Amino acid sequence: MPQLLVIGLDVGGSTTRAAVVSGTGQTLGTGRAGGGNPTSHGAQAAAEQLRAALTTALAGLDPTRVRAGVIGLAGFGRLRADPAARAAFDQAWRDAGLRCGYEVQSDALIAYASGTSAPDGSVLIAGTGAIAAEVRDLTLHRIADGHGWLLGDAGSGFWLGRAAVQHTLADLDRHREPDGLGRRVLTALLDSAEVATPPRRTVDALVQTVTRRPPVELARLAPVVVEAERDGDEAARRIIREAARHLVASLARIRPAGADGPLVLGGGLLTGDTPLAREVRAALAEPWPNATVVSAGDGALAAAWLAARTLPEVDDPAGLHRRLLGG
Amino acid sequence: MPQLLVIGLDVGGSTTRAAVVSGTGQTLGTGRAGGGNPTSHGAQAAAEQLRAALTTALAGLDPTRVRAGVIGLAGFGRLRADPAARAAFDQAWRDAGLRCGYEVQSDALIAYASGTSAPDGSVLIAGTGAIAAEVRDLTLHRIADGHGWLLGDAGSGFWLGRAAVQHTLADLDRHREPDGLGRRVLTALLDSAEVATPPRRTVDALVQTVTRRPPVELARLAPVVVEAERDGDEAARRIIREAARHLVASLARIRPAGADGPLVLGGGLLTGDTPLAREVRAALAEPWPNATVVSAGDGALAAAWLAARTLPEVDDPAGLHRRLLGG
Repeated sequence: MPQLLVIGLDVGGSTTRAAVVSGTGQTLGTGRAGGGNPTSHGAQAAAEQLRAALTTALAGLDPTRVRAGVIGLAGFGRLRADPAARAAFDQAWRDAGLRCGYEVQSDALIAYASGTSAPDGSVLIAGTGAIAAEVRDLTLHRIADGHGWLLGDAGSGFWLGRAAVQHTLADLDRHREPDGLGRRVLTALLDSAEVATPPRRTVDALVQTVTRRPPVELARLAPVVVEAERDGDEAARRIIREAARHLVASLARIRPAGADGPLVLGGGLLTGDTPLAREVRAALAEPWPNATVVSAGDGALAAAWLAARTLPEVDDPAGLHRRLLGG
Repeated sequence: MPQLLVIGLDVGGSTTRAAVVSGTGQTLGTGRAGGGNPTSHGAQAAAEQLRAALTTALAGLDPTRVRAGVIGLAGFGRLRADPAARAAFDQAWRDAGLRCGYEVQSDALIAYASGTSAPDGSVLIAGTGAIAAEVRDLTLHRIADGHGWLLGDAGSGFWLGRAAVQHTLADLDRHREPDGLGRRVLTALLDSAEVATPPRRTVDALVQTVTRRPPVELARLAPVVVEAERDGDEAARRIIREAARHLVASLARIRPAGADGPLVLGGGLLTGDTPLAREVRAALAEPWPNATVVSAGDGALAAAWLAARTLPEVDDPAGLHRRLLGG
């Protein structure tokens, strides 16, 4: 009997990743392409990246043998409501030779499934934006934040960057010498840490530089805050602590106190040993002392796993998860 | 000897107001026109409003007798740096028959001078945006906030509106029935206080409605918060209290603790007996128990007063201020 194959895709703003895996947990192919979000890139350009990632992942394999597929996508609801994007994705899927259907899932569910195979738990994500979700039976049940930079994303990369600029502006308002974080912010935005006389001229330059760009680019300053914290900067530490409080408060909107389901941390700012991840883990211990906190893993493999578990032949989804994602 | 005349203008985003006053404190003419900010309306359109307000205020008077003029303008620094706008204003000034020069001053200084004739003090303004300034010898010495909605304006009308939407979103995230403020926000933005099933659909509708419009339009929700507070809504009261804390914190960046110079409250949210003005006055008493707190008055008269006090014949500027502005 030929091997059972499934395919998973993790479609992000800057990268699209695909993985073909077998029912026994072998990764048989992977593919990588540029950002494939139809909302930000347009339907045709996004589908082109999807096709590229699929084709690479399927190289040397018979696509007609793939039995199920899952595509993880930020703002997946919009794909469902956008017939043009859906048609472009369908076409890319057929062009890659795939005959099975595919399900579109939120990137938050993919992040959750990349950390655990437990059907119930929660996920907290901080990258450019921030979102928390309660998962029941591997479906998003309740969502907190993810409201975008204008209204939410509290504790996100955008939030960190904005807080760093606000901290710098407050010191300039006070005619105080910028501290370590302030000097980094000035250098990153104005190419020099020098303050004009009067300082209001530097304030105006800073405000104009930021407001001329798309607001979301404030997230580019998040690494500046993280580096400053690593160098022991007090203000950076305070800002990161406050970001962690915001993230945990968002989670608390949808995760009952004392809940003990697993808790997956995802997004560039929470995956791995970052200062924000450390602060969040510390802050989580109070409301949820018994929760298992894990980092998100490979999104494409998690999408493939979500596809596999719908097949009747896959009788040990937890075992398959362990083999694929080590969880 | 003919009467000494001066002219003042208060140029705002939606109204331009002019006043001609005599050296003895009589108001001899007033004029009103549309918004005259060259940054938001363009140089020619702004100058047209200036001309209209000047001409009306000078009706029946001999413009060549006007000895001095002051124009109050938000973002006045940009006019100084914008030769086209400056030329258009010069032309409008000449077209109105005026032979004297004019000075351009920040709207924050005008607001300060509308409340007091004391050379040293501070001013705190909350309208669509928010700014605080320390005044020394009737010149802006240090400025706090005024950084715009993306980076600052903490405690402003924009801030209040955003806080109201965020409060509503937090309740929807929790699958909680919206409270009084939430119902008002939903009705104002979605024409109905009904919540969809699942509530995330209402969350998405709310976020999309706000993000489709210019962000600054969130300030239109400020009256909703004020009304809710007046009806005893708890959340509205909490938000207004936090706004007051932000405003006082901005002021504290530039007003030394214990300073006893007068403190002028300006802008639509702080002038008169508003809930925010009450909270701010209460919060000010702690760092500055001895400060005289006054509301801003007529900006055009204040601009005229600032013009008059530069003339050698005006030997009692404080008396003239009392007669013009009752301060």
